[in-house]
Amino acid sequence: MNLNYPNGKRYKPKESETATTTKNKKNNSYSNRGMTLEEDLNETNEFYRERKIAVIHKKPTPVQIVQVDYPNRSAAVIKEAYFKLASTTDYNGVYKGKYIDFEAKETQNPTSFPLKNFHPHQIEHMEEVLNQGGICFVILRFTRFEQVFLLEAKHLLTFWERMANGGRKSITKEEIEQKGHHIPLGFQPRIDYIKIIDRF
Amino acid sequence: MNLNYPNGKRYKPKESETATTTKNKKNNSYSNRGMTLEEDLNETNEFYRERKIAVIHKKPTPVQIVQVDYPNRSAAVIKEAYFKLASTTDYNGVYKGKYIDFEAKETQNPTSFPLKNFHPHQIEHMEEVLNQGGICFVILRFTRFEQVFLLEAKHLLTFWERMANGGRKSITKEEIEQKGHHIPLGFQPRIDYIKIIDRF
Repeated sequence: MNLNYPNGKRYKPKESETATTTKNKKNNSYSNRGMTLEEDLNETNEFYRERKIAVIHKKPTPVQIVQVDYPNRSAAVIKEAYFKLASTTDYNGVYKGKYIDFEAKETQNPTSFPLKNFHPHQIEHMEEVLNQGGICFVILRFTRFEQVFLLEAKHLLTFWERMANGGRKSITKEEIEQKGHHIPLGFQPRIDYIKIIDRF
Repeated sequence: MNLNYPNGKRYKPKESETATTTKNKKNNSYSNRGMTLEEDLNETNEFYRERKIAVIHKKPTPVQIVQVDYPNRSAAVIKEAYFKLASTTDYNGVYKGKYIDFEAKETQNPTSFPLKNFHPHQIEHMEEVLNQGGICFVILRFTRFEQVFLLEAKHLLTFWERMANGGRKSITKEEIEQKGHHIPLGFQPRIDYIKIIDRF
């Protein structure tokens, strides 16, 4: 079954928004460890919260609700709704009083990260956050190598600008290795991005 | 038609998540000005964003998606989904690098604000945000008087504690007037809560 966003992009159900009954089917398709980037980040954020290191949450997927039924004696059922394009990034929260904001994306591409993974509203949002003094970045995963990088939003904006000026539509892996920060995968937490933030 | 949350609470469709076709029906029921607290805050946040004063967004309503259909040549349709209880507050963002976090609620009660408007997860989240040095508060509206107050989370937590210890299940309007900050309603922005934050 093919599920698409209004913009024609393929819909992939995410862990956080899918009922547990469909959980097992999904897991196999992602990576060797059977964990999506989202799952890794949710566990990382949970770890941060429990240890009182930071309070970061993933935002719910925006949905336009059209019809809701209320069957007797049971929960309200949404019978018709549509996916809306997010106007911001997926994750935000607080670390030592500071505002933290990021988006996480993965690619199957082994040599570069396609910029079409981001949409213009998100880029605009990142600019606004930076202007307001927030800490803003993206977490990029190359699924084939299980490699995860943190790239500060200021660099992403530069690459986006390059594309807008007719340049390449992706960031090469080399560029990400140079400008970004490799995040070694751990056990607890899995993707320790706060450690990277402490450095800048 | 009565719509209820899984917890039995009445479901009120919100501006941000309802199709525009149902918009007019809804508006009448709220207040003299025909604006919900959510609409007022969305406009306020839009004003802040445009003027580069702050970047604050309302989080989407969390929904558990169970079934999605993909009709040929048109957008994916969510055919079965359920409301989930929010694990955080509804609004957050950044102001001068600082993390801002709040919840907004209104009551028809003329003399006190019932604490059942908040659920334990939200209270826990507010505690976590305060511990992490974030700026956290609630915006409370007494709909009968069109009066809006900002109450810092630390005070809300005290009143919540009082209830937990067997005390009253609401905050009296007097207490809110004493501990909170009245926000005069304006035209642009409608609910200028950032001005209050500047004071503390």
